[in-house]
Amino acid sequence: MFNCPIPIKNYPTVQLAHGGGGSLMNQLIEKMFLASFDSAPLKQRHDSAMLDLPRGRIAFTTDSYVIRPLFFPGGDIGKLAIFGTVNDLAMAGAKPLYLSVGFILEEGLPMEILWKVICSMKEAAEATGVQIATGDTKVVDKGKGDGIFINTSGIGVMDHSLNIAPGQVREGDVMIVNGDLGRHGMAIMAVREGLEFETAIESDAAPLADMILDLIGQGIEIHCMRDLTRGGLASALNEISSVCGLSMEIGETKIPVREDAKAACELLGFDPLYVANEGRCVVFVPANQAPKALEIMLRHDIGKESVVIGQVTKETPTAVYLKNAIGAVRIVDMLSGEQLPRIC
Amino acid sequence: MFNCPIPIKNYPTVQLAHGGGGSLMNQLIEKMFLASFDSAPLKQRHDSAMLDLPRGRIAFTTDSYVIRPLFFPGGDIGKLAIFGTVNDLAMAGAKPLYLSVGFILEEGLPMEILWKVICSMKEAAEATGVQIATGDTKVVDKGKGDGIFINTSGIGVMDHSLNIAPGQVREGDVMIVNGDLGRHGMAIMAVREGLEFETAIESDAAPLADMILDLIGQGIEIHCMRDLTRGGLASALNEISSVCGLSMEIGETKIPVREDAKAACELLGFDPLYVANEGRCVVFVPANQAPKALEIMLRHDIGKESVVIGQVTKETPTAVYLKNAIGAVRIVDMLSGEQLPRIC
Repeated sequence: MFNCPIPIKNYPTVQLAHGGGGSLMNQLIEKMFLASFDSAPLKQRHDSAMLDLPRGRIAFTTDSYVIRPLFFPGGDIGKLAIFGTVNDLAMAGAKPLYLSVGFILEEGLPMEILWKVICSMKEAAEATGVQIATGDTKVVDKGKGDGIFINTSGIGVMDHSLNIAPGQVREGDVMIVNGDLGRHGMAIMAVREGLEFETAIESDAAPLADMILDLIGQGIEIHCMRDLTRGGLASALNEISSVCGLSMEIGETKIPVREDAKAACELLGFDPLYVANEGRCVVFVPANQAPKALEIMLRHDIGKESVVIGQVTKETPTAVYLKNAIGAVRIVDMLSGEQLPRIC
Repeated sequence: MFNCPIPIKNYPTVQLAHGGGGSLMNQLIEKMFLASFDSAPLKQRHDSAMLDLPRGRIAFTTDSYVIRPLFFPGGDIGKLAIFGTVNDLAMAGAKPLYLSVGFILEEGLPMEILWKVICSMKEAAEATGVQIATGDTKVVDKGKGDGIFINTSGIGVMDHSLNIAPGQVREGDVMIVNGDLGRHGMAIMAVREGLEFETAIESDAAPLADMILDLIGQGIEIHCMRDLTRGGLASALNEISSVCGLSMEIGETKIPVREDAKAACELLGFDPLYVANEGRCVVFVPANQAPKALEIMLRHDIGKESVVIGQVTKETPTAVYLKNAIGAVRIVDMLSGEQLPRIC
């Protein structure tokens, strides 16, 4: 699988000409991209992909991935670039259908690294059922990039009439999270800091769409969802709270954090509430539907540790309140500075 | 217009935290992006934009912009990022509707530069009638990027039944180009090389959609189109030729190149056939429709110097043939190496 289709002895590394619009770029496109991303729209080799979408509302999203290092326990930049954008579509309640892929490569990048990333993207796209519809490759001079940056933009369709958005959150809504927090960020930091634990902390990078579409298909009237990436749970809740103008109360003891992630957080001075995840989301549902929603989520692998973490309130001032084990309450602010650079 | 809305004395430059998912990133999004790109989907502040598209086929495209320098005579990276992607949609015969914008910023980028680019994008988006529907911002450490990279992905709709693609090209099709070639690439190179001409060579960066939609609206059965960016006319024709399996004959004396661009090409050793343009395209139309197509194109500002440059043939071997003033014919190959790095 990892046999790079461009002979390493001819082109051991990416060169400026691989982004120059000429025959080297064509070789890259044909041997690497078209050979891996076997989609009908991509094969048209046109400036734009032609898509026949089922009738309905469309979700459209974009994300660039600049994570360092490119490979880490539990994933790599390629997998992240697929799952991350698929998850953003899922968070709107859309079925992910098509992705675009824009590479910004640094001159001198080993061709085998690029191939490994492409293989990982192919696998992730197949696992999530999305097609790579269109792409672009640019190469920047050595020292003006950092190996690989990837942008993926995505299109999904909504085959339901729910309006899932921060403004739809209502007092009394119950918040469910689909598992433990903090692993992705701590997996990256552990690698960067050279920390050794008994077993490596693995990123939670995973696609959320199947679980979410199951919830919607079974009639759960989701008011809002958010995947817990940059800024973690705390930032997601603060953002939603500021848009809907309501407070949220979450229970510290209800929020699952695995021992290894907790240890790494303590060692490095992070708060798991602010650490990025790549396979975790918070779902806001009406209180009367919460038990059914939880039951559905628990049936999915990606949701088998789902828990209710709190509820939406009218408490003033409008904020996110964290209640600890002994009942003391503190406000959880939005992250102000930079906690973890280049985590996604 | 260029009064940066984030106080320069507080944040003179972009910091890692501006991409961190916390309050600094929120400030950037609210004061700069939302204030400039005033679109309903963007204001939902959701992970995905919700779009209600008119029924029909959809065109979807992506492009990253890594041009150096960021500002050049006739344009800047922001304008290019809007026009370039709008043009890619137009080349499929689609009406451009929505763009996503993904910024990869380098730590230390002067905030005023970012603001100037955003203002330029706003202006370009308004000029082309597209909405910025969704966005993303990442910041990479100083020395791991190069000021600003921008990805724009675009969605357009087709309200006609033409199938515009390289595979649709037929023997006898006439090729029309909408004006002089080589200015964009030479404008960039002149700045980079510090060349002084009597007047600066200006990039031809411009949106093509109105002219193209007019052609389609007036019943011109366009078989294929391509904008003449990276690799220029020669690479575009070679790519299309290799997909449709037909040859093309173009007349060297018919291809317009302005004196200043010609002089710069000669000085720097470039062939204008391979130089990138950002407001030029080649349109393939059936021979009997060519006069009408030309007439329509000439009516548009962007097409007022349109010319027929040649015709599709069955000549073997399949190639792009250039006939010079005295009738000698040579094959114009695809660009093999890198001619002009980071031109878009």
